[in-house]
Amino acid sequence: MNNLKREHIQAFKEICGDNYIFVDEESLQHYSHDETETLSFLPDVVVKPRTAQEISAIMKICNEHRIPVTPRGAGTGLSGGALPHLGGVLLSTERMNTIIEIDERNLQVTTEPGVITEVLQDAVKARGLFYPPDPSSRGSCFIGGNIAENSGGPKAVKYGVVRDYVLNLEIVLPSGDIIWTGANVLKNSTGYNLTQLIVGSEGTLGIVTKIVLKLIPLPKYDLLMLVPFASLEKASEAVSAIFRAGFTPSALELVEIDALQIVSRMVDSYAVPVSDDIAAHLIIEVDGNNMDILMSEMEQIAELMMQYEGGEVFFADDAQQKAELWKLRRRTAEAVKIAGYTIEEDTVVPRAELPALVKGVKELGKQQGFHAVCYGHAGDGNLHIRIKKEGTPDSYGDEAMTKSLRDLFELTRSLGGTISGEHGVGLIQKPYVDIVFDPVQLALMKGIKKTFDPNNILNAGKIFDA
Amino acid sequence: MNNLKREHIQAFKEICGDNYIFVDEESLQHYSHDETETLSFLPDVVVKPRTAQEISAIMKICNEHRIPVTPRGAGTGLSGGALPHLGGVLLSTERMNTIIEIDERNLQVTTEPGVITEVLQDAVKARGLFYPPDPSSRGSCFIGGNIAENSGGPKAVKYGVVRDYVLNLEIVLPSGDIIWTGANVLKNSTGYNLTQLIVGSEGTLGIVTKIVLKLIPLPKYDLLMLVPFASLEKASEAVSAIFRAGFTPSALELVEIDALQIVSRMVDSYAVPVSDDIAAHLIIEVDGNNMDILMSEMEQIAELMMQYEGGEVFFADDAQQKAELWKLRRRTAEAVKIAGYTIEEDTVVPRAELPALVKGVKELGKQQGFHAVCYGHAGDGNLHIRIKKEGTPDSYGDEAMTKSLRDLFELTRSLGGTISGEHGVGLIQKPYVDIVFDPVQLALMKGIKKTFDPNNILNAGKIFDA
Repeated sequence: MNNLKREHIQAFKEICGDNYIFVDEESLQHYSHDETETLSFLPDVVVKPRTAQEISAIMKICNEHRIPVTPRGAGTGLSGGALPHLGGVLLSTERMNTIIEIDERNLQVTTEPGVITEVLQDAVKARGLFYPPDPSSRGSCFIGGNIAENSGGPKAVKYGVVRDYVLNLEIVLPSGDIIWTGANVLKNSTGYNLTQLIVGSEGTLGIVTKIVLKLIPLPKYDLLMLVPFASLEKASEAVSAIFRAGFTPSALELVEIDALQIVSRMVDSYAVPVSDDIAAHLIIEVDGNNMDILMSEMEQIAELMMQYEGGEVFFADDAQQKAELWKLRRRTAEAVKIAGYTIEEDTVVPRAELPALVKGVKELGKQQGFHAVCYGHAGDGNLHIRIKKEGTPDSYGDEAMTKSLRDLFELTRSLGGTISGEHGVGLIQKPYVDIVFDPVQLALMKGIKKTFDPNNILNAGKIFDA
Repeated sequence: MNNLKREHIQAFKEICGDNYIFVDEESLQHYSHDETETLSFLPDVVVKPRTAQEISAIMKICNEHRIPVTPRGAGTGLSGGALPHLGGVLLSTERMNTIIEIDERNLQVTTEPGVITEVLQDAVKARGLFYPPDPSSRGSCFIGGNIAENSGGPKAVKYGVVRDYVLNLEIVLPSGDIIWTGANVLKNSTGYNLTQLIVGSEGTLGIVTKIVLKLIPLPKYDLLMLVPFASLEKASEAVSAIFRAGFTPSALELVEIDALQIVSRMVDSYAVPVSDDIAAHLIIEVDGNNMDILMSEMEQIAELMMQYEGGEVFFADDAQQKAELWKLRRRTAEAVKIAGYTIEEDTVVPRAELPALVKGVKELGKQQGFHAVCYGHAGDGNLHIRIKKEGTPDSYGDEAMTKSLRDLFELTRSLGGTISGEHGVGLIQKPYVDIVFDPVQLALMKGIKKTFDPNNILNAGKIFDA
């Protein structure tokens, strides 16, 4: 199956220490899956190095002997990027969990990859600083995984995604060489942008071992409201109207009523307006340093929403109400999944095409006999879709489901969009990349892969077959 | 010298039309130089295609016959990126000067590369939209050249550089293949980020033929002030204090008094405070939608400046005063150049290291007998430096000057910085890239170059020797 031998495992033990190399069944099982539904692949060995130097030594062995290596953060990914589908070495960064320096003079943080995103956010927040990207899994995901997938989250609509904050990366190449990709500067026109090439490359080009992130001042206040709509299309039309009117909310989320009903039952902690004449809600947040202005913005946005047939606005009055509302939004994916819907799709279109996407999804469902629930980062045009076949809950791999997903992605593409806004391609979207990349584009990506990883040992077979 | 033959020129004429292929002495001379001082290299032929398809046909011929191609925008570059140093084909994008679509629904613009940056900015401004990157040459440079060099400008400190606005690019590869690099979406985690790889690649990987840029709402107001300092170091210390206090100015420029005196004489239109006890000025701009808040911010910043021994603040009262002050800043480079200083260096360091850089530059000057003037985008840590040898104005290529520049870049590197913040490497900084890139990093860049341009015909010998 692959070239891993007992002597290599012994060598890994000498590099990392006996305690950090695992071949027992329980460990292998634990690292065989991530958040991509039922997929599971056993690695042959799990290694937990502590330093870039240890990783370098491991990679040299694996490169020489052509042993597959799958790097892994917290395993919260939704595209299968951390699945060891070729066996071999599962390399976990969980022990590399130190925030190395919060540089308040330069508004930067240097961190190891195994730090939980929320831990990092809280640490910089304690110094009055802000690292905005906040995927739903921020309480458990690692910052290194966020780099690999170029994660987003609700705040991306105002503050951008992970790539907008990455200044410089230390990576270990498949050869074992350790390099920095750039410099710790805000502007850089010196050579090719290796930093941005690594961000979103899903662990296929190098293993990130240090991360330098830009920080910004923490905004003092935020306000949150929920607006119900009688029509999903009207709700999605209202989204781009907000930006065209000159507002830039710090979050602008869409949740279809089906999803909200499911999550409300699960969380059972909060009275969100649910009635027969509501089809979807927008969750709208503004933030800044002046409360009067925020209040005025909220009022203006609320008025604008009425033009799009928005219903009675619900303002979250205090921190607790805000937290509960966000909990509902953040746990939507989980709840909908439990309710038997397939894996979360991650379509993204130009913002104003959102109504066409939403409408198209519903029409496809009618034609092909599936039920879709939609939710996500509407302000970015990033719509998560989960579908369920009428009657039976189908699993990944089902032929009819694959056909439906393909049609869904073709629709997304036809609207100027693409198949992943923040989850990555990994294994899960890989069968569909031909929809968005022609052979010339794929050849360029494969050439880049070959430059970084000539023996195709690092997370091979993710995104595309090299 | 190269493989260009009469038959190829004939083929170019058939592709573009006779009127757009030039071999006369005057044309060749015109395209032999850019803004990089006295450097001049004659191309063998100048071609002015109108479409990506024409460029594709040209590239197929050049690729087959290994003919060097140098793409060129407006020729305002400061690193020699558009110099046809190998002869062959000079490919000018000047006829590709149409703004294709301003998409107000999605806050995007699609443009051809030969549009002057300021023309593009004005066109979107007329719709209430904002494309912030504003290099000093914005009145004459092309947006395509800005993509090639990942340009910045004063607004970058708040709004980011070119790369932060590029969503998608149509490029012609050296093979003649035409591809789009991504999708017109705000978030994208689908495959390697080819878009960001092209931005700042200095025309070495592909020829950009269409550009999709993100736009933002135009801020309603701005305020501008000038603060004198008795010490250059104090001025540069004050810079990072502004950000640490939570302000994000829309411009934060530093101009040393020598530079200001030179440009004041040249422009002769404005009474900027100049006296024996002033060493430098900060130009500080804030912008936003609420005038009261801006006034309050300006006052707070002005107070903060006093703590750093800032002198009497001068507020620009009206649009004319603002325009005059910006004219002084924008024409600084030109004036200092006329006064006999060498080419403009483009050092960039983490913002808080600016005082150390400024101090180091002055010390180097004392040791090595040169005089340096400093100015630039202090808020980004991006300091332009021009030096003049005592007595004689030296030219580029002088051995002692090369040594001084090397020391200057070594200093920049030691402070965590790099050699180009917004101008690119091109030919001019190429002798110094070993300071910031080790052989492994260079090998990766060369591998990427080979993937895109296996025959090394496109802007070969820029950044590095492939």
